[in-house]
Amino acid sequence: MESQPYRSPSTGRRVRAVLFDTFGTVVDWRSGVAREVEAFATAHGQDLDPHAFADHWRSRYQPAMDAIRSGRRSFTKLDTLHRENLDQALRHFGIDPDGLPREALEDLNKSWHRLPAWPDSVEGLARIRGRYVTGPLSNGNTSLLLDMARNAGLAWDVIIGSDMTGTYKPLPQAYLRTVEFLDLDPGEVMLAAAHNRDLQAASATGLATAFVGRPTEHGPAQVADLGPEGDWDLVASSITELADRLGA
Amino acid sequence: MESQPYRSPSTGRRVRAVLFDTFGTVVDWRSGVAREVEAFATAHGQDLDPHAFADHWRSRYQPAMDAIRSGRRSFTKLDTLHRENLDQALRHFGIDPDGLPREALEDLNKSWHRLPAWPDSVEGLARIRGRYVTGPLSNGNTSLLLDMARNAGLAWDVIIGSDMTGTYKPLPQAYLRTVEFLDLDPGEVMLAAAHNRDLQAASATGLATAFVGRPTEHGPAQVADLGPEGDWDLVASSITELADRLGA
Repeated sequence: MESQPYRSPSTGRRVRAVLFDTFGTVVDWRSGVAREVEAFATAHGQDLDPHAFADHWRSRYQPAMDAIRSGRRSFTKLDTLHRENLDQALRHFGIDPDGLPREALEDLNKSWHRLPAWPDSVEGLARIRGRYVTGPLSNGNTSLLLDMARNAGLAWDVIIGSDMTGTYKPLPQAYLRTVEFLDLDPGEVMLAAAHNRDLQAASATGLATAFVGRPTEHGPAQVADLGPEGDWDLVASSITELADRLGA
Repeated sequence: MESQPYRSPSTGRRVRAVLFDTFGTVVDWRSGVAREVEAFATAHGQDLDPHAFADHWRSRYQPAMDAIRSGRRSFTKLDTLHRENLDQALRHFGIDPDGLPREALEDLNKSWHRLPAWPDSVEGLARIRGRYVTGPLSNGNTSLLLDMARNAGLAWDVIIGSDMTGTYKPLPQAYLRTVEFLDLDPGEVMLAAAHNRDLQAASATGLATAFVGRPTEHGPAQVADLGPEGDWDLVASSITELADRLGA
């Protein structure tokens, strides 16, 4: 006799879809970007600390979206923001991007499309997909998430990119428009994320929540998001452990 | 040595994504709807010819979208149009929908989410997915296409529903917005469809084209779309044959 799908204590509903933050939660952006930065630096004779560069590039992620979330800038897809931030990061490290081949920079920018999954992600997602609708709920654009899924072997049923909702997390509409495309009630949708701020916003819009700990997302000296900081429905240290908790 | 992806003679580009019309091309809507109409009629003591009812319900599909395509009505998702058309079809057959349980009508309306694949679709799509990005390019809404995929086992990489493009085929924006989400050039995207009108519109917006013959979509007396009526890149009698032609 098969058990029922997981019922969220916070929403009182049985979960039908489990959606995942991607950068940091499903894929290891820091290692993936650093690896491609290293190859790029070698190929173009630049002296760069790959992890320091990855961290700096990533540090420009939230400020770039803030301009859009605040309304100062119209919606612009993440590939474009990453590309702008890449130029700025290169300049920060004393490198003139205009002196580098345009195609090589475009290709490096696509490193965000080729991020490696954490060791438990592929198996965990495939198991969860057996019982629940799965998809990303990410600030990535559709083509980025599609490439990431094909490259890393992520078992999504559906990809609803931020260019489809036209907004960025943690604004409420990012969650609510995603739920609307799925034609579900917010309480039937669970967000799984390694970031407490993301879960806080999802919970505020009525979603179920699961914290997946990724204490080395930012490297060995990570200080934030080392554990759950809210009353989330589930807490797991991997996506396979989350699958266990979901009965998947 | 693996061969290159298929190059479209009409666009001059190698195809990277193969997108499919769904109703009629991938799934057998007439048999699927008729089967559920029959069960519904039996359960509720109604005398209905299931195939005649399915045909009539479907006949209201294009006129309902025409109101939106012409701008007379704002975008409304297909589930809602199907539900309105169901009431009208019941009245056409002399049945008052208000005399029937609301939940039963909602469930019958969901028959469009549960359509059976043609015998070659599941294998053909899985093969094509091995070499190309796959997805529907349908007038169905996202949740309909998602349910259809999970029920029938369709191997999509991505689902871009008409509620994401906010428009209906054969308007050019239905094709172009889909291509934009994929971040591809129109010539790198192939539409596979059993309907010449759909392929004509896709070709006019720059897409590659494949005709997949479905001569019994409308039953044994079908008169339209019995063969290709344009200079389409590929012509096949099944999705497995299309996979052969695509080297997949």
